[in-house]
Amino acid sequence: MSTQLFSYQQLTAFTQKVFLAIGCPEEQAATATKALLSADIRGIDSHGVARLSGYVRLWEAKRVNAKPDIRIIHETPSTAVIDGDSGLGLVVAPYAMQVAIEKAKQVGTGWVSVQNSNHFGIAGYHAMMALQYDMIGMAMTNASPLVAPTFSIDKMLGTNPICVAAPAGKQPAFVADLATTTAANGKLEILQRKNQSTPSGWVQDAEGNPSHDPHELKKGGALLPLGGDKEHGSHKGYALGAVVDIFSALLSGANYAPWVPPFPAYVPMPAQQPGKGIGHFFGAMRVDAFRPAEEFKKSMDHWIEGFRAAKPMPGQEKVLVPGDPEREMEAERMKEGIPLLESVIKDLRSIGEKFGVELK
Amino acid sequence: MSTQLFSYQQLTAFTQKVFLAIGCPEEQAATATKALLSADIRGIDSHGVARLSGYVRLWEAKRVNAKPDIRIIHETPSTAVIDGDSGLGLVVAPYAMQVAIEKAKQVGTGWVSVQNSNHFGIAGYHAMMALQYDMIGMAMTNASPLVAPTFSIDKMLGTNPICVAAPAGKQPAFVADLATTTAANGKLEILQRKNQSTPSGWVQDAEGNPSHDPHELKKGGALLPLGGDKEHGSHKGYALGAVVDIFSALLSGANYAPWVPPFPAYVPMPAQQPGKGIGHFFGAMRVDAFRPAEEFKKSMDHWIEGFRAAKPMPGQEKVLVPGDPEREMEAERMKEGIPLLESVIKDLRSIGEKFGVELK
Repeated sequence: MSTQLFSYQQLTAFTQKVFLAIGCPEEQAATATKALLSADIRGIDSHGVARLSGYVRLWEAKRVNAKPDIRIIHETPSTAVIDGDSGLGLVVAPYAMQVAIEKAKQVGTGWVSVQNSNHFGIAGYHAMMALQYDMIGMAMTNASPLVAPTFSIDKMLGTNPICVAAPAGKQPAFVADLATTTAANGKLEILQRKNQSTPSGWVQDAEGNPSHDPHELKKGGALLPLGGDKEHGSHKGYALGAVVDIFSALLSGANYAPWVPPFPAYVPMPAQQPGKGIGHFFGAMRVDAFRPAEEFKKSMDHWIEGFRAAKPMPGQEKVLVPGDPEREMEAERMKEGIPLLESVIKDLRSIGEKFGVELK
Repeated sequence: MSTQLFSYQQLTAFTQKVFLAIGCPEEQAATATKALLSADIRGIDSHGVARLSGYVRLWEAKRVNAKPDIRIIHETPSTAVIDGDSGLGLVVAPYAMQVAIEKAKQVGTGWVSVQNSNHFGIAGYHAMMALQYDMIGMAMTNASPLVAPTFSIDKMLGTNPICVAAPAGKQPAFVADLATTTAANGKLEILQRKNQSTPSGWVQDAEGNPSHDPHELKKGGALLPLGGDKEHGSHKGYALGAVVDIFSALLSGANYAPWVPPFPAYVPMPAQQPGKGIGHFFGAMRVDAFRPAEEFKKSMDHWIEGFRAAKPMPGQEKVLVPGDPEREMEAERMKEGIPLLESVIKDLRSIGEKFGVELK
């Protein structure tokens, strides 16, 4: 698969101009760009600039409002519900996370559920906003229904990711960022390109049989919850995905379960709309609302060093701490550049032509 | 395997007398009994009365304080840290959960991290305390190090369960209660008794190789994080177990990672003690801190009914909602009685003899 390297700065300049071209206010275009490209630099290529055309198509379909009036519609000292006014999730989510952080400054923790939003990129970007304040950050979102719960043929949930980020001292922060499925859609796309089959427990076919076909989703099949099948704990992955849905959409009044609006603008909207847009959930906990931050961070260093010192199994070089692979990727890509597939570059150039913006 | 049925009332009377005999104050003996037996009635036999002798042995080893001075050592409007004073987790946890609930009444949510405690039974009992207040409840705990993280031979985490309970309207509550491993230790014990091998992804041997031996833990092997191996997403189960450890122990000052004190009193304590006792974490979120409770519960009903109506795969009768199996078991066992294995009955009778309490 041929790729070409682009610098973070090149992609930033291009993406920002595209967001401005669809009418985003300057500050929001900058925020959306930073949130979107955080996926590319962290190596989650499926959620980065490759999705820019998807966001543009949602705007063309009038499902994304480029000038949203994002507002708090209900609150208590430690909670808020935010109406995203159909804005880009890339803009709504950082706004909501900041509200959670401000609440945490006041009363120790802040918890924000969001309705009427769109896809927010990677959960990690938003959760990690809390780190600079010596807070633990959490972010989750529901998503297009692609996942069949244990024993089900019907697709009832999205890949519904969860991120938890916790600050450390000398060590880099702990960042767990995971879809609640065995594998996310992006992993299937990689296997499709390589013409390889999927491991067991990733997908099932339209009749609910185990499958190894990475193209299964286009044939009516489904992604599987973390665990794969009942014998391997899929009821746990299903339960976690369900919790994300409840926190993100049932607490906020967004759409939930199979009624979550699909990301691809060409997929028809579900007939039923029990809520508004898609839902997110954010949390911020001030570490010193529990324990002096320096003590906590010293313990986190000790914890992290303990895991790094664990004995690796034969054939493995080392035991990783959640966040390690993405951080290493970020260091590499900020230095060497971000590799984009030819198909992605072509897609970006065609957006560029539409808006008179050059990818250079 | 021969079993004998006991009524909930019989086991309650016996267990309560044993807790009184080791010196628990009357109210605490009642609380501990209710928390412990909630496992038996919900079908989680490994965490119920079968563990009573284990708790007694911890008391004999002076690792459990029967008359703890449980107290808040730090707090903000939405958070608290509690020192369990080496009390039974079965008593410390309900105390801490009640603090979380009171905080939620005041400021919308309450979050409590606990140090210096012992094993608390099932997470579900504590999280479900929030339901009667129209709150979402959360409970988690760290535990004896039996789990090898992805790529590791060393056992660095416990089965670290998470429970999230959310109220519904006409439908019964949603209760997701799960260990962050593919299978918990209790499942291995069942296979041991049946002389059956474990499915893939449950355990590995002392060298880190995949194993199907349910006795593997006694031979230096380890339980595996939910997912089993990297290809099947075990780095996600590992990350979730790590989050439980951080919330429960790093925020509170309890022991963490491989330094968590083991449940069996005969297993020597780890050489290093970076904190105090084991750690728990509890959360309570008032539903109406986000949205009118009636609206939320109506949506929960719709959500639950949607999942129950999902098409089951061939060979499956229906799609379950988290909490269904345990609730069905509870209805059955409250009516028919609780089956105890001969070995468990023998164990209980020998405790009874020690304290002059009869199991009748």
